[in-house]
Amino acid sequence: MSVPVLYSYFRSSASWRVRIALAYKQIEYEYRAVNLVKDGGEQKQAAYLALNPSGLVPALHIDGHTIGQSVAILEYLEEARPDSPRLLPRDLFQRAVVRQIVNIIVADTQPVQNLRVLNHVELIGGNKADWAKHWITLNFRSLETLLARHAGQCCVGDDLSLADVCLVPQVGNANRFGVDLAQFPTIQRLAAALQLRPEFKAAHPDNQPDKV
Amino acid sequence: MSVPVLYSYFRSSASWRVRIALAYKQIEYEYRAVNLVKDGGEQKQAAYLALNPSGLVPALHIDGHTIGQSVAILEYLEEARPDSPRLLPRDLFQRAVVRQIVNIIVADTQPVQNLRVLNHVELIGGNKADWAKHWITLNFRSLETLLARHAGQCCVGDDLSLADVCLVPQVGNANRFGVDLAQFPTIQRLAAALQLRPEFKAAHPDNQPDKV
Repeated sequence: MSVPVLYSYFRSSASWRVRIALAYKQIEYEYRAVNLVKDGGEQKQAAYLALNPSGLVPALHIDGHTIGQSVAILEYLEEARPDSPRLLPRDLFQRAVVRQIVNIIVADTQPVQNLRVLNHVELIGGNKADWAKHWITLNFRSLETLLARHAGQCCVGDDLSLADVCLVPQVGNANRFGVDLAQFPTIQRLAAALQLRPEFKAAHPDNQPDKV
Repeated sequence: MSVPVLYSYFRSSASWRVRIALAYKQIEYEYRAVNLVKDGGEQKQAAYLALNPSGLVPALHIDGHTIGQSVAILEYLEEARPDSPRLLPRDLFQRAVVRQIVNIIVADTQPVQNLRVLNHVELIGGNKADWAKHWITLNFRSLETLLARHAGQCCVGDDLSLADVCLVPQVGNANRFGVDLAQFPTIQRLAAALQLRPEFKAAHPDNQPDKV
């Protein structure tokens, strides 16, 4: 079996999620950088679009197929590598809570403040940082309430899950746009603790080969 | 076991997804309408926020718990009702393709053009319909490419899946915002065929008790 190839950009929070999961599951992979800003974006070039028609990172080539969309990749890893450390609990309702948190981040928050949306906000006369801050803050309020109900040492209880894998990169985005995390004590506490774990350090944007 | 309760708004495409899945799986439920526009929105009232801190529909009360986020609900139904008709294929790579399509819709498209984002676009001086049309068109281009590769009678092969459950309501949004679907022949063909199925008819906004 050939080694998986991750198409990633160091700063992309969606790529960052997959890097955490791969590190935690101890899946070796080749890192292939896709520069989202150089020359209008390598993700918009034909070679990459053939792999991922969305023109977004990440994409993972694994087991002979290429998968786009971070959540599709994360769920695939969970199903295709059942002997690796789990990122979904066994209890069905706990799994639903994990996926609820995941979707608040990957659907309600990140796509509304990603690079292409922010560029379009600017195009129609809006302020990119204000926009990003507004949506992250609004969604972090809901997230804080949910996490206060369900968190232990991790987002849902004491075991690492896909919720943690998605939370830390989104907190990275929040910091980048100057969101005051003191409003969200549970999020702040969880992110601070999670960032100390080796798989989160390995996956951090600063530790990627394409970091500039 | 008490009957599940679906908190829904007839026009909400995220609620619509769950209605299709419930109908297809023949799960009886009580419909509880949450009016997203009346008096500033019932979804922002304390009683509803206690159920779903995101202040979004849908939420499903089932098996003693309330779950928010349509995808978390859909995955829960798949896992908790294994004897009902499947909406995820057995093959792991096919499952990944389904989830890739699902996420293009539920993450890249719908949250960027939902009610609260459109209201904010207007607030910063943008045009709501132009904005919605822009993002739906952009994402439908990627979706069309993927579907041309994988579709049979349904989005992925000939069996109904979560991809179909998400596609039809998003096509509903596209029609609402005047997106020309002739650009997307595979999407158009699939949506036309799917809409004839009884579970899609039952779930359609026009057939909900809160339709105005």
